[in-house]
Amino acid sequence: MSNPTAAMLVIGDEILSGRTRDSNMFHLAGELTKLGIDLVEVRVVSDDPDAIAAAIRALSDGYDNVFTSGGIGPTHDDITADSVAAAFGVPIDVRDDARALLVAHYERTGSKLNNARLRMARIPDTATLIDNPVSVAPGFSIGNVHVMAGVPAVFETMVASVLPTLTGGVPLTSKTQRIDRGEGDIAGPLAKLATDFSDLSIGSYPFRQNGIYGANIVIRGTDSARVDAAMSRLMKEFDL
Amino acid sequence: MSNPTAAMLVIGDEILSGRTRDSNMFHLAGELTKLGIDLVEVRVVSDDPDAIAAAIRALSDGYDNVFTSGGIGPTHDDITADSVAAAFGVPIDVRDDARALLVAHYERTGSKLNNARLRMARIPDTATLIDNPVSVAPGFSIGNVHVMAGVPAVFETMVASVLPTLTGGVPLTSKTQRIDRGEGDIAGPLAKLATDFSDLSIGSYPFRQNGIYGANIVIRGTDSARVDAAMSRLMKEFDL
Repeated sequence: MSNPTAAMLVIGDEILSGRTRDSNMFHLAGELTKLGIDLVEVRVVSDDPDAIAAAIRALSDGYDNVFTSGGIGPTHDDITADSVAAAFGVPIDVRDDARALLVAHYERTGSKLNNARLRMARIPDTATLIDNPVSVAPGFSIGNVHVMAGVPAVFETMVASVLPTLTGGVPLTSKTQRIDRGEGDIAGPLAKLATDFSDLSIGSYPFRQNGIYGANIVIRGTDSARVDAAMSRLMKEFDL
Repeated sequence: MSNPTAAMLVIGDEILSGRTRDSNMFHLAGELTKLGIDLVEVRVVSDDPDAIAAAIRALSDGYDNVFTSGGIGPTHDDITADSVAAAFGVPIDVRDDARALLVAHYERTGSKLNNARLRMARIPDTATLIDNPVSVAPGFSIGNVHVMAGVPAVFETMVASVLPTLTGGVPLTSKTQRIDRGEGDIAGPLAKLATDFSDLSIGSYPFRQNGIYGANIVIRGTDSARVDAAMSRLMKEFDL
């Protein structure tokens, strides 16, 4: 049986304009790998309702889980929740459970729960809330789509809230071996190894360091004995 | 007239597994913004020929320019060139012009041009080569798709080779103002500003620093006088 699959949708003009360097993809990728959920595709789209809804539909149909990042704050450019509701064809409005969280929070902090902040309580019908211990305003899950904030500290805490609720798979065993030779010299024996161990994923990631060409060879698979066997043969082939 | 559009396709299991943090997206986004080319969508897919070909077709149809990153080295997991050829339905083989570059390079360096390295001379029919001053093995352009290496130093030099050949647009003027107030307090006046300046893109990027909530407000547009006017009103609204 193969592992559950996942896709990610990053939403935000600031990523596409080069103003901000996304870090949420790297974080989510690492967390999913630990759980044995295969991240298969990532898309980044701009703050455009139609582009967001189309991507949500495509990814939700294609993968077991979808995670989104960005666009759920109080300002006019935060349009993710409404776009996700449109993608699922469900109504969206300020919801009592989300409003109650915000009311309690702003009473505690002495800020005013104005109309802008109330936007953060807009949650599609049938969605369940995702806990946000950092700044209270919740994310939400609807169908197989998990909608989370873009600010990295908030995104990461929401990921930590959601992941335990998902069905994981068999985590991959991964072994890495650095070889200080050009990839062109490694490639022949490596291709033969990949053919003989076609149940494993064998990747070559070249680098150049202090004028020396080399590559990190990464062998990954769910059966750790097979990973060990492939790694042993690699070491023997290259006299390591 | 609106600016030319672009999409990017990042290819590689190492990004999706969280092993490697992609930096090419951030680099390309910044370079395209300088040229007035709007990066509208980015996708990241795994080392899977069908996924690569499907993404190439979708992005090539949808945008004026497509840039790919990764999978054009000498090892068995470098399958981008063949997948792009499949997407365009054109033959691919070792091509004389690319082979000549490699022959000269390996004669100079004293390494052997073996079969693995010759894979890097596999170029689809009708493609034109992209210069690689860093490590010689070329990228290529076919139709509106520009195929480049994943190693950041090589990717960046190939981007520098390709961009001068493209039609640019009107570069955006961008002004940023930091406001040390919670986004919930900023949101109301900001939404009104965005409505009154609907020809501009006005974004709010929240942060928390030393316990203080604030946001960077970014106003962008092709007409710098309009950007200035919007920024003046923002400053007045918030007594800055």
